[in-house]
Amino acid sequence: MKDLRTYDKSRLLFLKEQLEEEYEAYKAQGLKLDMSRGKPGADQLSVSNGLLDAITSKDWEQGAGGSLEYRNYGILTGIRECKAIFADLLDVPPENVIVCGNSSLNMMFDYITQCMLTGSGGEPWIKQGEIKFICPSPGYDRHFAIAEYYGMKLIPVKMNSDGPDMNAVEEIIKDEKVKGMFCVPKYSNPTGATYSHEIVERIAKMKPAAKDFRIIWDNAYIIHDLTDNPDKLDNIFDVLKKYGNEDMVIEFTSTSKISFPGSGVAALAASKNNIKMITSRMTIQTIGYDKLNQYRHVKFYKDVAGIKRYMKLHRAILAPKFKAVINEFDSSLGGLGIAKWTKPNGGYFISLDVLGGTAKRVGQLCEEAGVTLTTIGATFPHGIDPEDKNIRIAPSFPPVDELMTATKLLCLCVKLAAVEKLLEDEKE
Amino acid sequence: MKDLRTYDKSRLLFLKEQLEEEYEAYKAQGLKLDMSRGKPGADQLSVSNGLLDAITSKDWEQGAGGSLEYRNYGILTGIRECKAIFADLLDVPPENVIVCGNSSLNMMFDYITQCMLTGSGGEPWIKQGEIKFICPSPGYDRHFAIAEYYGMKLIPVKMNSDGPDMNAVEEIIKDEKVKGMFCVPKYSNPTGATYSHEIVERIAKMKPAAKDFRIIWDNAYIIHDLTDNPDKLDNIFDVLKKYGNEDMVIEFTSTSKISFPGSGVAALAASKNNIKMITSRMTIQTIGYDKLNQYRHVKFYKDVAGIKRYMKLHRAILAPKFKAVINEFDSSLGGLGIAKWTKPNGGYFISLDVLGGTAKRVGQLCEEAGVTLTTIGATFPHGIDPEDKNIRIAPSFPPVDELMTATKLLCLCVKLAAVEKLLEDEKE
Repeated sequence: MKDLRTYDKSRLLFLKEQLEEEYEAYKAQGLKLDMSRGKPGADQLSVSNGLLDAITSKDWEQGAGGSLEYRNYGILTGIRECKAIFADLLDVPPENVIVCGNSSLNMMFDYITQCMLTGSGGEPWIKQGEIKFICPSPGYDRHFAIAEYYGMKLIPVKMNSDGPDMNAVEEIIKDEKVKGMFCVPKYSNPTGATYSHEIVERIAKMKPAAKDFRIIWDNAYIIHDLTDNPDKLDNIFDVLKKYGNEDMVIEFTSTSKISFPGSGVAALAASKNNIKMITSRMTIQTIGYDKLNQYRHVKFYKDVAGIKRYMKLHRAILAPKFKAVINEFDSSLGGLGIAKWTKPNGGYFISLDVLGGTAKRVGQLCEEAGVTLTTIGATFPHGIDPEDKNIRIAPSFPPVDELMTATKLLCLCVKLAAVEKLLEDEKE
Repeated sequence: MKDLRTYDKSRLLFLKEQLEEEYEAYKAQGLKLDMSRGKPGADQLSVSNGLLDAITSKDWEQGAGGSLEYRNYGILTGIRECKAIFADLLDVPPENVIVCGNSSLNMMFDYITQCMLTGSGGEPWIKQGEIKFICPSPGYDRHFAIAEYYGMKLIPVKMNSDGPDMNAVEEIIKDEKVKGMFCVPKYSNPTGATYSHEIVERIAKMKPAAKDFRIIWDNAYIIHDLTDNPDKLDNIFDVLKKYGNEDMVIEFTSTSKISFPGSGVAALAASKNNIKMITSRMTIQTIGYDKLNQYRHVKFYKDVAGIKRYMKLHRAILAPKFKAVINEFDSSLGGLGIAKWTKPNGGYFISLDVLGGTAKRVGQLCEEAGVTLTTIGATFPHGIDPEDKNIRIAPSFPPVDELMTATKLLCLCVKLAAVEKLLEDEKE
């Protein structure tokens, strides 16, 4: 097929009929498929089953375990061995690491809450009137939701293939009401893009008008490679150091997509100042996080090399799913001029841009035929995609056969919605 | 010995010399003992070692586990089976229960943070000027620390043997700046007192001037009995219902002193309105808590009866420690007129009141001889015990022999500090 935008009305009408017939056939199947969230599938979960056997009662039998009393209260910022692994993974000194519970999202939420109530060095954010946050878009809906929850104004910035549009960012930060920015610097959610050397440099040297500006550096996909040509991300703290800007960034990561999503371990890395401020709040907040689960991870993975071995097993399951979706996009949508999609080297998502003004319609068509996509618009601040074109595809959860069915249906819906739109435009 | 307060100066001087000699002998031993925190000892931790074997990889082998996908994301408010156990324990419907992570303190902190930033039904607390919180005292230092952290004014109220002084509370709540109260209603920290039927009734029917008044009902020691005559606490929600006051109380509990202090499961119970408000924040805060650890607890304990069986094993270890301390107090301090102590039926603490104005000196003497007590004053708001007399004793952590040594030294210090004080008073 060639570019649909060159079709005349009669051909479009003919195509529409064909597509509708195909669509009705799908609908009749009564599908119930889910491509909405970046959840590992059951086969991936089983990769980590050994974690459940990594510590047992035997570890605390007489003589075992030595002085390790990880069953009791205390050790607020995480056990030494687990800090060491995250320090190695993030390439920062262990004293700049805090290991918490099962959720890096919760840590980001807590950190932003801390900024709201007690500030990030300056006045509490809540006392500074309407504040703003920069949101590279498309981006991660749960990030945006935190800022929205606290009533911030979200400022979208275009997410390019090498990172956020820094020309825009550098303008926006001249406003001292702009307090921070969300970044998923590697295998970005949802585009899969990794920030280039130049972009990391420009971020690290920013001098925002707000002295209490903070970047949420969510390195969720730090070693989540899918190909033999993994992306490389610069160590943000190395670059920040050059500009004396270490306090500007808090880095987060977790094993949610390494071990078990609900029962992993999350950590942050930050400057000495920020570690001190965060710890001072944690002292009030809790007596400590689940150290046995931290220790379970330490015993299971042993070190970063151990984690990488398991990531290869994940890749073996995930890569074919990504490939299947991308192949289907290539063959069904290639050359039609109505869609573009990313081919990421890692992460959990494919970002699909359909014909402007049709993404919501595609979501609706899919939903009505039994395929759930990420809520259309969710990848943009306040849930509003100004061009109504972006769809986040999460290929990880369904088994390959279901994924293929869902993707075929999706491609059909993309075409049908595009034809409808082109016909409509013709009328005008 | 008889009441020291009847001694004349020469007898006091003679006694002081004797006590100082004894004290120096202790000091020479170079002790290093800790009675400061309510931490279980190693023997108690081992009671729960089976928890570490309660779930294994076998539970997720093909065919096992059924549709239980607790390894993945989701199930925000806790797994069904775990909710059921807490619902049974707290005697409330499961839909009024939320099960979270490892720390009820963290849940209280989160709840108060939520009230600060988004309110508990009215305006956010942070927007209501200086607000106040009622603190039955002596009480739990970590409760007070949360309110202090948020800059609240802490109002101490006398903690009697049947609960807080409700005459005082009923006056204080006429001030609409008073937003809540901390309660440890059973085996209170540190006095061990349990709120009587009458006190629970008076609390439940309160009509505070502040419509957004909230009680933190920290039922930390709900089944932590130490004797054959356990205290009975009325179900607060049953009583609240009579007065249409269910929204006023959030109840918290955890398995921190049932399974492992750092790796237990915490839960709250609340009215439908409050559950809705709390859940709406949780939706932003996290994708879910550690469900595998919830499931681990379910498989290990099975039900409340199962928990109670393990609590008997804890009691077998704890009760002799409490008895040893109390026996030593009886024999060393009984009849001297310089100290009073509680004899609790459960919980983790003995509350020792020494001669007014000497508690800090006792703490100092103990510290210098190598015995760490809970920071003197910590049981009062802002760390200030107005009569400088209360000392929280935590007998759980040291082995019995160490505990006995520490207690003997403590008694000696109580006497020495009293004699010093009586001599000083004589001068004036």
